[in-house]
Amino acid sequence: MSFERANISRMRGYRPGEQPLDADTVKLNANENPYPPSPAVVRALAETDGAALRRYPPPLADDFRRAAAALHGVAPENIIATNGGDELLRLAFATFVEPGGTAAATRPGYSLLPALAAVQDARLLEIPLEDDWSMPADFAARLGGVRLCLLANPHAPTGMLLDAGYLAGIARSLDGVLLIDEAYADFVDPRTGYDAAPLIARHDNVLILRTLSKGHSLAGLRFGYGMAAEPLIGPMLLKTRDSYNTSTVAQRLAAAALGSVEHARAGWERIRRERARLAGGLERLGFDVAPSQANFLLAAAPSGADAGELCRRLRARNVLVRHFDEPRLDDKLRITVGDARGNAALLAALGALLGDGG
Amino acid sequence: MSFERANISRMRGYRPGEQPLDADTVKLNANENPYPPSPAVVRALAETDGAALRRYPPPLADDFRRAAAALHGVAPENIIATNGGDELLRLAFATFVEPGGTAAATRPGYSLLPALAAVQDARLLEIPLEDDWSMPADFAARLGGVRLCLLANPHAPTGMLLDAGYLAGIARSLDGVLLIDEAYADFVDPRTGYDAAPLIARHDNVLILRTLSKGHSLAGLRFGYGMAAEPLIGPMLLKTRDSYNTSTVAQRLAAAALGSVEHARAGWERIRRERARLAGGLERLGFDVAPSQANFLLAAAPSGADAGELCRRLRARNVLVRHFDEPRLDDKLRITVGDARGNAALLAALGALLGDGG
Repeated sequence: MSFERANISRMRGYRPGEQPLDADTVKLNANENPYPPSPAVVRALAETDGAALRRYPPPLADDFRRAAAALHGVAPENIIATNGGDELLRLAFATFVEPGGTAAATRPGYSLLPALAAVQDARLLEIPLEDDWSMPADFAARLGGVRLCLLANPHAPTGMLLDAGYLAGIARSLDGVLLIDEAYADFVDPRTGYDAAPLIARHDNVLILRTLSKGHSLAGLRFGYGMAAEPLIGPMLLKTRDSYNTSTVAQRLAAAALGSVEHARAGWERIRRERARLAGGLERLGFDVAPSQANFLLAAAPSGADAGELCRRLRARNVLVRHFDEPRLDDKLRITVGDARGNAALLAALGALLGDGG
Repeated sequence: MSFERANISRMRGYRPGEQPLDADTVKLNANENPYPPSPAVVRALAETDGAALRRYPPPLADDFRRAAAALHGVAPENIIATNGGDELLRLAFATFVEPGGTAAATRPGYSLLPALAAVQDARLLEIPLEDDWSMPADFAARLGGVRLCLLANPHAPTGMLLDAGYLAGIARSLDGVLLIDEAYADFVDPRTGYDAAPLIARHDNVLILRTLSKGHSLAGLRFGYGMAAEPLIGPMLLKTRDSYNTSTVAQRLAAAALGSVEHARAGWERIRRERARLAGGLERLGFDVAPSQANFLLAAAPSGADAGELCRRLRARNVLVRHFDEPRLDDKLRITVGDARGNAALLAALGALLGDGG
């Protein structure tokens, strides 16, 4: 017999991007950073004392929280460390959304969110973006009764950036928590002036998600954090979070990453340059590429080409990109910005496939 | 204003044992292993390639699952890897217990369970143990409507061991999931013949929890696992689990730990010898010590001595033990079995406190 709850039995699980074992694969499907983590992180790993692992980690990751607070100009009480950014998303549902309650997001959006809502037995209101991927004018007006509104910024999978003033407006009108998922914020062009961190001092319902997976090249480490006013952080930190959610190793390496942010910053700039080059290359091949402030591009296949088929044929050539089999995305590829070599390999493979029918 | 759900607002969070920074502290308060992890684990840590952390980990921890399956004589499909054993406890609540539903445990029991039940907005039926800490005769009969019954074996904080036949009887009569928390099972005397793993082939509702925190000296790594029939593992593995719940580093070190289990086994035998010596020493000081198959002892303070006061005075002497301020436990100390030096330091401090009034 089945022992699952009815809502769990009904739901479909989230399917993460493929993780091939083959080192030769050009992997542009999971928005990983093409550059290695900072030397300070590698050093912290090498200096980690295996014998010390017999003891529990600091439960609240205090050293990391101090490092994150210093980086963003907030207090350690405004920070919660999590086992990847995904843990913070789950905690937000568990803490702020009643079973039967409603959360809201955009459509398209992060494909994990419907799964998290289903686990909590909550409703996910998915509000469609406009044709140009901008927010619909009535977005805020449609959030009545919503306990948790999740906005990725830059948006995934489109790469579009909302400005902090727009987010402040949503926060003001929302009678619930506004979670700004900044998983890709490190890749935003600094000339935009985007910085949402000051919002948490002015809005008691703004929760900012950050991760070290992309910007700090540490997807394998599982480390993220949340920033918010203390009354929003407190219940997650002291009640709904697993009591030792981050390991001693992860805490050390994460603190080292934030402590050497200049190294990461240089990588972000390289990725922005590669992003522009890759977008140009795709456009020359006939793709229609949405403007992106993230480390990926959403590219509509040239007319006559089938995006799903292109994805499969790229795979046969050891190049992985992501294809979402859903309306408005099924004619597009989501392509992670890789390093110069990876991007060139992708463009060459696409050129061959589009030129000769593959 | 507060954005917490009502059940979260009402609940008290779990308070983990203190994690002092002072290396001189004799730390017998959190059931950590006094010996370092296996050299194979330390080697795996040293050989971990920091650059590889830029990629996501294998989402299902396949290598680890194969190692655990081989160790217990089950299939990889019977294994789920988790971010510490605590994650498996949370997943069991999220997957099998409806909000408003009922879970059951013993009283006394693991003090995290009321918090997990509160987060899920579920009821925790706490069934009192008998005066000698044995199971009440009507335990199984009281489980009507229970969706999840959690039994620590050996029991915490008493150290008592139930045999597998008794557990099979509970599983047979229970119309829900029986979670056997074997966090301390590595310390059971092999002469007892205890092995619950075969139960999962015969009972589709038995879920066994294991952790590397205690037996493998890896509390700082955060790694545990569950064993059960595939229909019980599946929903947790593919639906309620965070999609990348264990890191690349943790997966590697955990697989190395299980692959070098002989090293850990030698430590378990040393801890059993120390356990007997420590129990003898405590009894000579007038403590009444419950028989324990775990790496801790529950010791009733000599008459006239106040256990809470003893705990505080030990702390002033840099010796940490655990005191639970609740009925039936408040006259006792829970003391982790340390190495010979730590145990001697504890006994010396207790001798001084009890001899001269401290």
